[in-house]
Amino acid sequence: MHRVEQTLLEIKDMINCGNYSSLRSKLALLDPADAAWFLGELEESEWVPFFRLLPKETAAEAFSQLEPDEQQVLVEGFTDRELQAVLSELYADDAADLVEEMPANVVKRILRHTDPQKRAVINQLLNYPKDSAGSIMTTEFMDLKPQMTVAQAFERIRKVGLERETVYTCYVTDQNRRLEGVVTILELLIASTEETIGALMNRDVIHFNTHDDREAVARAFDKYGFLAFPVADGEGRLVGIVTVDDAMEVLVEEDTEDIEKMAAILPTDKPYLKTGVFETFKKRIPWLLILMISATFTGRIIAGFEAALAAQAVLISFIPMLMDTAGNTGSQSSVTVIRSLSLNELQFKDLFRVVWKEVRVAVLCGVVLAVANFFKIILIDNLLFDAQISIVVAVVVCLTLCCTVLVAKTVGCVLPMVAKKLRFDPAVMASPFITTIVDAIALLIYFAIAIILLKI
Amino acid sequence: MHRVEQTLLEIKDMINCGNYSSLRSKLALLDPADAAWFLGELEESEWVPFFRLLPKETAAEAFSQLEPDEQQVLVEGFTDRELQAVLSELYADDAADLVEEMPANVVKRILRHTDPQKRAVINQLLNYPKDSAGSIMTTEFMDLKPQMTVAQAFERIRKVGLERETVYTCYVTDQNRRLEGVVTILELLIASTEETIGALMNRDVIHFNTHDDREAVARAFDKYGFLAFPVADGEGRLVGIVTVDDAMEVLVEEDTEDIEKMAAILPTDKPYLKTGVFETFKKRIPWLLILMISATFTGRIIAGFEAALAAQAVLISFIPMLMDTAGNTGSQSSVTVIRSLSLNELQFKDLFRVVWKEVRVAVLCGVVLAVANFFKIILIDNLLFDAQISIVVAVVVCLTLCCTVLVAKTVGCVLPMVAKKLRFDPAVMASPFITTIVDAIALLIYFAIAIILLKI
Repeated sequence: MHRVEQTLLEIKDMINCGNYSSLRSKLALLDPADAAWFLGELEESEWVPFFRLLPKETAAEAFSQLEPDEQQVLVEGFTDRELQAVLSELYADDAADLVEEMPANVVKRILRHTDPQKRAVINQLLNYPKDSAGSIMTTEFMDLKPQMTVAQAFERIRKVGLERETVYTCYVTDQNRRLEGVVTILELLIASTEETIGALMNRDVIHFNTHDDREAVARAFDKYGFLAFPVADGEGRLVGIVTVDDAMEVLVEEDTEDIEKMAAILPTDKPYLKTGVFETFKKRIPWLLILMISATFTGRIIAGFEAALAAQAVLISFIPMLMDTAGNTGSQSSVTVIRSLSLNELQFKDLFRVVWKEVRVAVLCGVVLAVANFFKIILIDNLLFDAQISIVVAVVVCLTLCCTVLVAKTVGCVLPMVAKKLRFDPAVMASPFITTIVDAIALLIYFAIAIILLKI
Repeated sequence: MHRVEQTLLEIKDMINCGNYSSLRSKLALLDPADAAWFLGELEESEWVPFFRLLPKETAAEAFSQLEPDEQQVLVEGFTDRELQAVLSELYADDAADLVEEMPANVVKRILRHTDPQKRAVINQLLNYPKDSAGSIMTTEFMDLKPQMTVAQAFERIRKVGLERETVYTCYVTDQNRRLEGVVTILELLIASTEETIGALMNRDVIHFNTHDDREAVARAFDKYGFLAFPVADGEGRLVGIVTVDDAMEVLVEEDTEDIEKMAAILPTDKPYLKTGVFETFKKRIPWLLILMISATFTGRIIAGFEAALAAQAVLISFIPMLMDTAGNTGSQSSVTVIRSLSLNELQFKDLFRVVWKEVRVAVLCGVVLAVANFFKIILIDNLLFDAQISIVVAVVVCLTLCCTVLVAKTVGCVLPMVAKKLRFDPAVMASPFITTIVDAIALLIYFAIAIILLKI
């Protein structure tokens, strides 16, 4: 990987020295992903001139990998001719993504410079729901007919292969564009040239529908290890394929979204440093407000016991530890369950198995925490800090710990599964609320046990 | 996807009816991933008989996708001959994974039935560090020589292609096995048959070293959209390739690990329902104990103000809200930064940009939360619940909110970046501790402001 950074340093030098002929030959070897990255290292005013130096395939591919705001700067800087050149090299799915992200006036200019056929495909792609298989598929796949011979198939691949996103899996369709089977390049290479595609192809094809969830498609790549999946429309016609590189992008995005949701952030799709301050603020403040207001409950619970707490002030000092432990144990369970749900390792029918497992784990954790806490109170609080905490208070705290862990782990695993069953997003519905819910429960348990044992 | 479940229902029926001839032909079309999944739905005693019915390539591929404990059941049930058959079909990297996971007596039996050449490769693979590129690479790649013609290359691909994990990218090596370039099957197909590989190949190859971090390799797939990366040893010799399906598995595993670490769980590599109760307990209890003990700080802080709190009992009821808000704002920042670090969007040199951004977001969040909280106290607490909270106390709480959010967001973004710089794992070092640290800070701020404004 160091070689890439080395290359980029050399390129920077050549630009500074105006050494354009060596620069052009260096750029000819540059990978599009590196070109896109390198652009971000330059001043905005240098972007269009830098782009002009790239070979046109590299330029188009690099363009498709840029962030929308970077793309906009380039589109606005391009001459009509340059814009047309880039657009003609873009795959239809990348062009559709571009159209989706640009402001209206830029979109108009883009569509004016796109040929009518591609414009039709773009419009079709834009009609698929945002998180559907249709929205991530590419329409440039290699299609063959069953009556073709292997020799004819190779002829076709040689002719149009360069314009297809992948040629390694070829899709066999009938005259109505229905998917009949698939055949890989390796199978074609090994077969005799006279054999027909119909005889070679594998008819048992796993395919998706344009309206299937894009995450389900992406997870299928992880399960099957394929390089592409075909996507059919409502009438069973093959309309596109999802390739493994797009699937990987979806997986990374979905994981980022899940992580953000679990941390009570509305999901973004921009890299951190490219998101503005106000935008970041808008993604974070809603949950902070909701959770702050919902803490009214815990506040009211404490207020109800204010007199008792004032009388037994020592009880106050354990509130943070009890709340934190409740939150930690609860979120351990909820996060594990949410992740397993995303990875399709768990279904709703497993609910009782999950609860039974969590209950046993909770008993183990609760007992260990309670015992450890008892010794902590005796050894650290009383001996080290001379806190003079009575044995009864220590027992109250330890019993609370046991009960709280049990409740927190149960709530933590049930909530996401029920949310999923009710078709809410488990990561959103379960994770941020877990802490608030188990905090309130922990306090209620604490005060109930305190009242009984301390007779306050 | 429904089709797969349909097929599996049919297979179950055929097994129950003992209809073995149709079963065999049905199984011949089954995808290995589905076969592996289906095995999990059967009783353990049916596993070996089910495996005997699978075509041998499907059987080997399905075997490689099973969990270690499932593999062990099968290996122990196989006859020597069956074991040998499965082992001879396994790719060396899958065989190495198997050897790594099995208990010693099973390993002995496996190695006894592996041919010496493969055994040498397995031993070599087992020597790479656990999270290295070497540990996830496959040694079965398609190698060509620069002096070969395209026709000769195709001849070789036809001959050995089926034994290689991928033939879509071919690796060109010199007589010392040094990597000279790569050429894709599509390039070979388009070229004339007399051309030499040396003239066709792309010499500018991005490659990794066996000791590179496996996550870095996996993230490179997301960046470049390639299907495979070559891996070289310390002397620059090509020793293997990492394919995109293995990279995707690594990404999913690494994301799961990060999610677990952020939720204060030690990472596991087994699916939730396949992990035993005691094993789950062992992954969760360490952090619960550490965090519980570290809550001694917050406890001591409160204990120090016990007398003041007993006098102004109303202050107690705001402690949960202040602590929760501090934890939530802090983890919003830390989680965002940790994720950006994993995705290589952030470097340590960006520290000041990050802090400056977080400070501005914090001021916005802090002010909005403080204002909202002020109205909440007046409207909900005082009017609705008749809590009779004085304006001064409300001001104390709101000022604390502002300051706490600022500190929590700053700590939340600095801690993971510093952890990464010091070569600690940001997800482990920063995330679980954030809550404990900002809790303590929130309380200190709260009491400091209360002492000044309420003169207690």
